[in-house]
Amino acid sequence: MATLRSLYSSDHADRPEFNTNFNVDYVVHYQIPPKEAAKAEAGFVQLVEALTGVGLATEVRRGDDSSLLIFVKIASEDLLKQQVYRYRVQDWLYGVRTTAPNKDISSYFEDEPVIEAEKLRLVYLLITKPRNEGGAGVTPKTGQWKFVKSVFPLHNHAFNRQLIKQLSTKYFIEESDINDIRDKFGEKIAFYFAFMQAYFSFLVFPAAFGFGAWLILGQFSLVYAAVNCLWSVVFFEYWKKKEVDLAVQWGVRGVSRIQLPRTQFHFERETQDPVTGEIIKVYPPLKRLQRQLLQVPFALVCLLVLGSLIISCFSIEIFISEVYNGPFKQYLVFLPTVLLTVFMPALTTILTNLAEKLTVLENYETHDSHQAAFVQKMFVINFITSYLPIILTAFVYVPFGKVLVPYLDVFHVTAQHFTKDGKVAIQPFEVNPDRLKKQIIYFTVTAQVVNFLLEGIVPILKRKAFKAVKEVQSDMTHKNVQPQHKDHEEEAAFLQRVRNEAELDEYDVTVDYREMIVQFGYLSLFSVIWPLTGCSFLVNNWIEARSDVMKIAISSQRPIPWRADSIGPWLTSLGFLSWLGSLTSAAIVFMFNRDPYGPDGLPANIKGWALLLSILLSEHLYLLIQFVVRYVIGNMDSPGLQKERAERFAMRKLHLQEIFGEDLAESAAGANFAGPEKITREALEEEARRGSVSGSRLEAPEQLFWQRQRGAAETIQIGRGYMSEAVDAAANKTKDQ
Amino acid sequence: MATLRSLYSSDHADRPEFNTNFNVDYVVHYQIPPKEAAKAEAGFVQLVEALTGVGLATEVRRGDDSSLLIFVKIASEDLLKQQVYRYRVQDWLYGVRTTAPNKDISSYFEDEPVIEAEKLRLVYLLITKPRNEGGAGVTPKTGQWKFVKSVFPLHNHAFNRQLIKQLSTKYFIEESDINDIRDKFGEKIAFYFAFMQAYFSFLVFPAAFGFGAWLILGQFSLVYAAVNCLWSVVFFEYWKKKEVDLAVQWGVRGVSRIQLPRTQFHFERETQDPVTGEIIKVYPPLKRLQRQLLQVPFALVCLLVLGSLIISCFSIEIFISEVYNGPFKQYLVFLPTVLLTVFMPALTTILTNLAEKLTVLENYETHDSHQAAFVQKMFVINFITSYLPIILTAFVYVPFGKVLVPYLDVFHVTAQHFTKDGKVAIQPFEVNPDRLKKQIIYFTVTAQVVNFLLEGIVPILKRKAFKAVKEVQSDMTHKNVQPQHKDHEEEAAFLQRVRNEAELDEYDVTVDYREMIVQFGYLSLFSVIWPLTGCSFLVNNWIEARSDVMKIAISSQRPIPWRADSIGPWLTSLGFLSWLGSLTSAAIVFMFNRDPYGPDGLPANIKGWALLLSILLSEHLYLLIQFVVRYVIGNMDSPGLQKERAERFAMRKLHLQEIFGEDLAESAAGANFAGPEKITREALEEEARRGSVSGSRLEAPEQLFWQRQRGAAETIQIGRGYMSEAVDAAANKTKDQ
Repeated sequence: MATLRSLYSSDHADRPEFNTNFNVDYVVHYQIPPKEAAKAEAGFVQLVEALTGVGLATEVRRGDDSSLLIFVKIASEDLLKQQVYRYRVQDWLYGVRTTAPNKDISSYFEDEPVIEAEKLRLVYLLITKPRNEGGAGVTPKTGQWKFVKSVFPLHNHAFNRQLIKQLSTKYFIEESDINDIRDKFGEKIAFYFAFMQAYFSFLVFPAAFGFGAWLILGQFSLVYAAVNCLWSVVFFEYWKKKEVDLAVQWGVRGVSRIQLPRTQFHFERETQDPVTGEIIKVYPPLKRLQRQLLQVPFALVCLLVLGSLIISCFSIEIFISEVYNGPFKQYLVFLPTVLLTVFMPALTTILTNLAEKLTVLENYETHDSHQAAFVQKMFVINFITSYLPIILTAFVYVPFGKVLVPYLDVFHVTAQHFTKDGKVAIQPFEVNPDRLKKQIIYFTVTAQVVNFLLEGIVPILKRKAFKAVKEVQSDMTHKNVQPQHKDHEEEAAFLQRVRNEAELDEYDVTVDYREMIVQFGYLSLFSVIWPLTGCSFLVNNWIEARSDVMKIAISSQRPIPWRADSIGPWLTSLGFLSWLGSLTSAAIVFMFNRDPYGPDGLPANIKGWALLLSILLSEHLYLLIQFVVRYVIGNMDSPGLQKERAERFAMRKLHLQEIFGEDLAESAAGANFAGPEKITREALEEEARRGSVSGSRLEAPEQLFWQRQRGAAETIQIGRGYMSEAVDAAANKTKDQ
Repeated sequence: MATLRSLYSSDHADRPEFNTNFNVDYVVHYQIPPKEAAKAEAGFVQLVEALTGVGLATEVRRGDDSSLLIFVKIASEDLLKQQVYRYRVQDWLYGVRTTAPNKDISSYFEDEPVIEAEKLRLVYLLITKPRNEGGAGVTPKTGQWKFVKSVFPLHNHAFNRQLIKQLSTKYFIEESDINDIRDKFGEKIAFYFAFMQAYFSFLVFPAAFGFGAWLILGQFSLVYAAVNCLWSVVFFEYWKKKEVDLAVQWGVRGVSRIQLPRTQFHFERETQDPVTGEIIKVYPPLKRLQRQLLQVPFALVCLLVLGSLIISCFSIEIFISEVYNGPFKQYLVFLPTVLLTVFMPALTTILTNLAEKLTVLENYETHDSHQAAFVQKMFVINFITSYLPIILTAFVYVPFGKVLVPYLDVFHVTAQHFTKDGKVAIQPFEVNPDRLKKQIIYFTVTAQVVNFLLEGIVPILKRKAFKAVKEVQSDMTHKNVQPQHKDHEEEAAFLQRVRNEAELDEYDVTVDYREMIVQFGYLSLFSVIWPLTGCSFLVNNWIEARSDVMKIAISSQRPIPWRADSIGPWLTSLGFLSWLGSLTSAAIVFMFNRDPYGPDGLPANIKGWALLLSILLSEHLYLLIQFVVRYVIGNMDSPGLQKERAERFAMRKLHLQEIFGEDLAESAAGANFAGPEKITREALEEEARRGSVSGSRLEAPEQLFWQRQRGAAETIQIGRGYMSEAVDAAANKTKDQ
């Protein structure tokens, strides 16, 4: 397996399997369940025929004991170019590219070469697209192709190694690194790293300011809250602009309009697209809207289910740590953690399945909209699991603790059953004002570390264990039978590597996005409680970006390089959290930042109307600032948009040149363009003269009117006459008076 | 003068001056101040030369006693076509038109004829554009052309008569009427009428529902408030979409990007446009931003100045009508009205001048952005004068009246000076809960009627008086001198009409927009106080739309038919008022809609936090609904956008046809497009075979790898071998266990 060690060891030059992909574009991992061997064999034949039928070369090799590896590459360079050309023309037809592809193919590809991501994307489309659209129609794991476990490209380990090395030696990911990522992994993943880079750079400010605030202003500082809000607005607006810029730079702006259709989409009727004239499948949008409304009960169910779990654990924890004082306390304090660890993942899984089902029910035409709808639902779940505990502490436990905790006596009664004498020692309850800060530190430091371990280390261990088991099994199998086919010597190492890559998980970029957005939420919503939050995130994200690269390079199959023109549905979440931050920050500052602390060291004298007023004011100040920032940022010309406009302009000018020739096109852009025919002043005067004499029926008043004065000279002369007359009249009038 | 009577009188057939414009495109009204006669004469010569120099034919006639009328028409049809063609090509270059103009001019103009508004716009540009851009550079009232009083086109009275007749016989303005208006008066004015039409149609609902609510629910109904808010959201979002649709339909979408430069713009440096390569004049945006910040103190000054006037008058009124009970009460009650009538217009004029100055200081490049910035400032003034009185009554007078009114004793003391015995009879103060309703009725009924009279009738009277004075003066002048030049008989009536039109005001569409937006504000903000508001506006707007047409046709010069692609800055105001409505409605309903009225029949027990909470909830409900409505409306395909997309698509396809020929372009839209070269399966296999044998260095592992299996058949065969092997192994394993 490609472990970190092997990638970095100095002997990689000796390991040729990491340095060549044998020109393989894709590997199809084909399962052979012994019980359905005949079916699998028939499927295999169909598979190879389908692949070769669309112009792909195939080679088959053994996989693990019960699978085959079918290596696929595009049969000829010409076919590839043809495909690329075709998709580029389509892009242009749909308005994604501003310039039409050149007619002369060979010179065209010299000007705009095919990048690796583009090639892999097109080959993948060739494999998976339906047959009637010119593809092989191979859809992994479904229907006819249920034995196709996965279709994946092979890692370019030399590049991965280089990238990891580059990133680990610098503080900031640079534009060029992201462009590299784009070239190899496609725009969708490049957008994630671009977002990471922008977020990380922006984080420097709240980290520094937060550190200063922590030293000087302390917790719950109004100034910190205001600056933090302003920061999040600026970041959000900046990113919105940056996103468009990147999309233009990468030539993918508007690509979300040309979307990958979902094969699972059910249509109700077919109709002709009024724009392109193609036959399209339609599902009534109102029907979808009705189903989308199910999101409301779904959100309520999530809130109810997860909320009651969180509240229960929260109550138990408070009871045990702050009220209960009896036996086993040292063990019982772990009870809520255990409950959460057991039930939370289970419930989340159930709800995630529900979300998936709901999204399927909503029946989207395209992968993107399906994904966006799913992400929206996941955001609800994540929001509850991530932020509800803190919201409970800040807005329920602290202000109402004294009132509510006595109701926790229900646990007291329960606890009595488990003690011998039926008596439970309890201590008087005091609201613990430090709990809020501790919780924030837990979520912003501890949880991030734990998460990093779960994400980075556990999968590796899991796979190692899994592999060990498999090897034992394999040894048992091969004890008696020697395989008839041995790997060719020069391929053996390579095949071994591919077998390993076949076992890896698919990389899902949404998981990483989710992590970042949830993190941004902590910063925006609660960092006023603990201003060091920004510092923690800064450190964490430096590591996170590198570990994400490693995750892609080492513990995942190489992702299919999809295109994207934004971070998609996460943008909405980002805006939402930024806005919500203005509410929570104001509320927290108002409630906790007060001098006249009560006798118990807790905030006292909180007036409801004053709290609400401060929230109201804060929110509207936020909206006002957002308006201003948006205006200012919107007024800055961005290089990407400028480039796009310039390209469109150049394209039109070129078109004009084709119609009218060089000179006219040049002047058309300027002010003096006069169309294809030149008109001189002489010609005009000549025409006027002709017009004056040509009319046979001179008595028409319209003609007579315009013939009273022939030419400018006469007009001037007669005008002068009128003027002197007027002046005389005025003079007479003055005389008379 | 073209009075209503004359336009409608059956004898208009006898009045040829209304039926012909003598092919005149524009009339230049040229003043001759007797004291500067020499200068004026020189200017006149320059003017005629400048006009003829760009291809315009001129005729001069006497104006009134001290002015000339210079009639202008474009000299030849060809020049016009050339101009039109040139601007259409420019539109296309800047992305306003989707289709490039055809090369063959004569057939092109048969397909897309020149409409009247287009012709007039281009001729106006020809007259006013700077000389270096190919125009005559005549800018009325400024610099060299200070004697040019106005440049205006002549009314098409036959059309006007027809339009007024049409509109006055139907309930709704139809799409075709608006298209007619567009053809004659340009898109800018057509957008106003389209907005009116949409608003009027939408008003039917709040009028009907409001009437029902007035009968059944009464004042301050929560249901009415909710429905009203929902209505305003739907209307706003609908209009946003409709606006784009209309712009596409009229071929002006994006026209706001090609803007008319302001001649008064001061630039700091020149630079090359990165897009078009033209030299453009630049003023640093940051510097402008600094100046734009002056809007904040400006708004404060407006609030202070107008606010104190309104509060003073308000206080005096309350004192006199509800506290004071002494002598002259019957006269004194008019005091606040007199004060408002005297001071309000004066202050508004001063502030408007200030706003104008501020806008000039902001130094915009284009007329549109200048206008938008000015409108923004005017909106602040209008907001204060229109809504502050009601806000004061609802949120200060009613809740705090009991507390504040005793402070009005200051008037009491003042009043003592004016009475003989130094004693003023006062009555005990009671908050008058009906005042709010009365005020709303005043603003939504009385004020609208007064406004209609001021707008429609007063200018006519004013002009009549003015004319009478002038005629007397003229008679005095001509008592002694008989004019040397008499009007030609067949032109006399026409010239008389033109002289009248020259005296008319310019039509300013922003005044009418302002009226509508302010009206929308009453509906959105306060109609919950008096649900019949909608009915009143419905009636008012039916008349308003017709009277606006008449205002343009009869009491204004024919407007220059400018283009526009939206209602511009008013859209923001509309959204703002709609949103603010969710706040005020909630507050009003909460404060006034309560059963346990206090002992004085007034709302009692208003809890601050509950009020704020209801405002907060209402606002967020509003934002949520807006989000949903926007999503739903955004998902509807609009005919305009569809048309645009189809056109762009067709244009690209055409371009493709030019490159590749018919067949390929056809298939490019579909799925099976294969680029200019066809590749068959046979060719592919041939190439693969050649590739296999051609390599001279067969030992390269990449080549060897792909040559193990030649063709699909071999792959299948070997794959089968692997499979049976795997199945055997599995079988053995099962046996072993």
